[in-house]
Amino acid sequence: MKIINDGITAPIGFMAADAMAGIKYQGRTDMAMVYSKADCTCAGTFTTNVVKAAPVIWDRDVVVKGKSARAIVVNSGIANACTGEKGLTICEKTAEAAAKALNIQKEQVCIGSTGVIGMQIDVDKVTDGVSKLANSLEKSPEASLRAAKAIMTTDTVHKMMAAEIELSGKKVTIGAMTKGSGMIHPNMCTMLCYITTDAAISSEMLKKALSESVKDTYNMISVDGDTSTNDTCFIMANGLAGNEEITEENEDYYVFLDAINTINTNLAKKMAADGEGATHLFEVKVNGASTKEEAVTLSKSVVRSPLCKSAIFGKDANCGRFMCALGYSGVDFDPSNVDIYFESKAGSVLVVDKGMAPEFDEELALKILSEDEVSVRCEMNMGDKSATAWGCDLTYDYVKINADYRS
Amino acid sequence: MKIINDGITAPIGFMAADAMAGIKYQGRTDMAMVYSKADCTCAGTFTTNVVKAAPVIWDRDVVVKGKSARAIVVNSGIANACTGEKGLTICEKTAEAAAKALNIQKEQVCIGSTGVIGMQIDVDKVTDGVSKLANSLEKSPEASLRAAKAIMTTDTVHKMMAAEIELSGKKVTIGAMTKGSGMIHPNMCTMLCYITTDAAISSEMLKKALSESVKDTYNMISVDGDTSTNDTCFIMANGLAGNEEITEENEDYYVFLDAINTINTNLAKKMAADGEGATHLFEVKVNGASTKEEAVTLSKSVVRSPLCKSAIFGKDANCGRFMCALGYSGVDFDPSNVDIYFESKAGSVLVVDKGMAPEFDEELALKILSEDEVSVRCEMNMGDKSATAWGCDLTYDYVKINADYRS
Repeated sequence: MKIINDGITAPIGFMAADAMAGIKYQGRTDMAMVYSKADCTCAGTFTTNVVKAAPVIWDRDVVVKGKSARAIVVNSGIANACTGEKGLTICEKTAEAAAKALNIQKEQVCIGSTGVIGMQIDVDKVTDGVSKLANSLEKSPEASLRAAKAIMTTDTVHKMMAAEIELSGKKVTIGAMTKGSGMIHPNMCTMLCYITTDAAISSEMLKKALSESVKDTYNMISVDGDTSTNDTCFIMANGLAGNEEITEENEDYYVFLDAINTINTNLAKKMAADGEGATHLFEVKVNGASTKEEAVTLSKSVVRSPLCKSAIFGKDANCGRFMCALGYSGVDFDPSNVDIYFESKAGSVLVVDKGMAPEFDEELALKILSEDEVSVRCEMNMGDKSATAWGCDLTYDYVKINADYRS
Repeated sequence: MKIINDGITAPIGFMAADAMAGIKYQGRTDMAMVYSKADCTCAGTFTTNVVKAAPVIWDRDVVVKGKSARAIVVNSGIANACTGEKGLTICEKTAEAAAKALNIQKEQVCIGSTGVIGMQIDVDKVTDGVSKLANSLEKSPEASLRAAKAIMTTDTVHKMMAAEIELSGKKVTIGAMTKGSGMIHPNMCTMLCYITTDAAISSEMLKKALSESVKDTYNMISVDGDTSTNDTCFIMANGLAGNEEITEENEDYYVFLDAINTINTNLAKKMAADGEGATHLFEVKVNGASTKEEAVTLSKSVVRSPLCKSAIFGKDANCGRFMCALGYSGVDFDPSNVDIYFESKAGSVLVVDKGMAPEFDEELALKILSEDEVSVRCEMNMGDKSATAWGCDLTYDYVKINADYRS
């Protein structure tokens, strides 16, 4: 697998565009379009929140069920959630406008929205935006970048990645862009994620690959424990690479899955590190759990604990809080078996030894916790199952961003 | 029921003391003792965290199982959690010192600790503290107050209350003190709570009354979603009021339960309002749920949401976040049935109408959210079950307190 300096338009046949539609933000781009010149198999995973935004309902009911996609239209600024029938109509009008401009079917248009909940989108602004987008589609790393920037809300950095692999002797390319910074929590973390590929892969296998991958990547990040109304991870594959179509779990499938995993892990970590107000990427590895489910539960319990997150912000080796967060996860274990290490590129230090706090080198711990990426490794010593979760520290700026966000 | 200006020593036969033991804090009191001159029936509820602090293990195994208590010894500064066998020995030595000084059995001494996890308590300091305490026991509102202050950690105000009721023609008094400010979350919220009474009540009925009451009071508050290792609610009843002993669910039982509930509700709200860094008491009422369990789950989901808590801090009527937090609670409901109101003594405003954001008076909303005590009322329109949860806003100071706490 070779990482290339590109994003969503890297695979053959994909183009993208951005536009200033003035939906809520002024003076910046706030809409993006992705277009494939050939029909795509597609798959999506969406928020588990009972309150689903209109675009989630649209995508799930129309695009994913239909199994053929051609375009994605995303706006930032307004989430189109809690907007009732009117919100669904906005999705339909947006899809219609895109379908007309691109000469495709409206059922082939995936819609994404991110931003404030409860506000209605002005239909004229969004359909005008669609016209602009359709007229400026382009295939280039710059176009990929501009699209990734247009979908940002409180994100401080854009997030995109692309990679090449070889399947049945053909070069296959995958591109992706994500946004997501607050309201991020497991169960289809609050985020928008779009992946394109020119691989030939059946709808069924694409769906399988996406769910497999999301489980260990996007569903393992938490910024604040709030599962959004808009979470979406959508993948479309147009087959233009000309590889032999993947229709079963063969070697090609695993090469493809591995590439998707690498991209998703990378982007998931970028999202966690760019959590609202974050100053540290906070990684929690749990090893030696009895089951995978328990490993996941334990790691998520620590990664979302406000007290652990505050300790990471304060570079404070307050090891008891980490034991405490394992303890209230709901998983049963013997505390006297547990070892915990703080780790980063500055080193490793044992801070809980068989459930108790040993004497440790506080200076080394401070050095470790001063790195941008900090890892807490919990050895449960019960079995052989592992999980890794990613989050970020809890900072003044998280509060500031979210106390002021709407206004 | 008559509220009286006193606390833990209000009931007949109870005395209390405070002391500076220098366990961790300097220049302030950090130990408290409560003593009953007659044997008490007792009951306790404790943290559900798998990682239980030594005093929790001691109390549960010794005092509560033994069913007769005479004294409580509490220290602040160090939690005596994650301290292994040595931590348990500290509890035993403390109880022994108290038993000797008070001429009672060590198994009659309830121990409580609150503070940093993972540090060991110096046994000499704590036993010296016990001697000081035993020599300065006193029955007065001032002694009640001093004890309530000695058990504070990051609390900014002490929390105590006392009340009188009449049972079978006798005046019965109940006193209480609590502490708790961070690491507070349902499932025996992180806190220490001690209740004394001179009521005559069987061990069984005392236990029943305590569990009934904790469920709707202390277990309904959340400051940060972290369930501590030390949560304790302990009640002791010495029977000196001379009422006819309560041994069944008769009228006296309900009068007693009602008084306990009033006291616990009041102190639970005080704890939530004094959550670390809090500027608002944040109350979430859920009405019209299908079951009590669902009402509890929904209200807790909103009260612990960092995004809702940040909105309360920012006085931002960001109604979508509240719908979102109901939505990811795990309870199934139809969003288009839900109405949400923001309420305080400044008024009431409908901010979600049948699942959608209506036009509302933003100025009035700001006025409502500017009060110290803010309530969010969610009408689910599914059934007739209700629950109320209490928390506080998420502020810069929460982060500051917890990034710096250990050092």
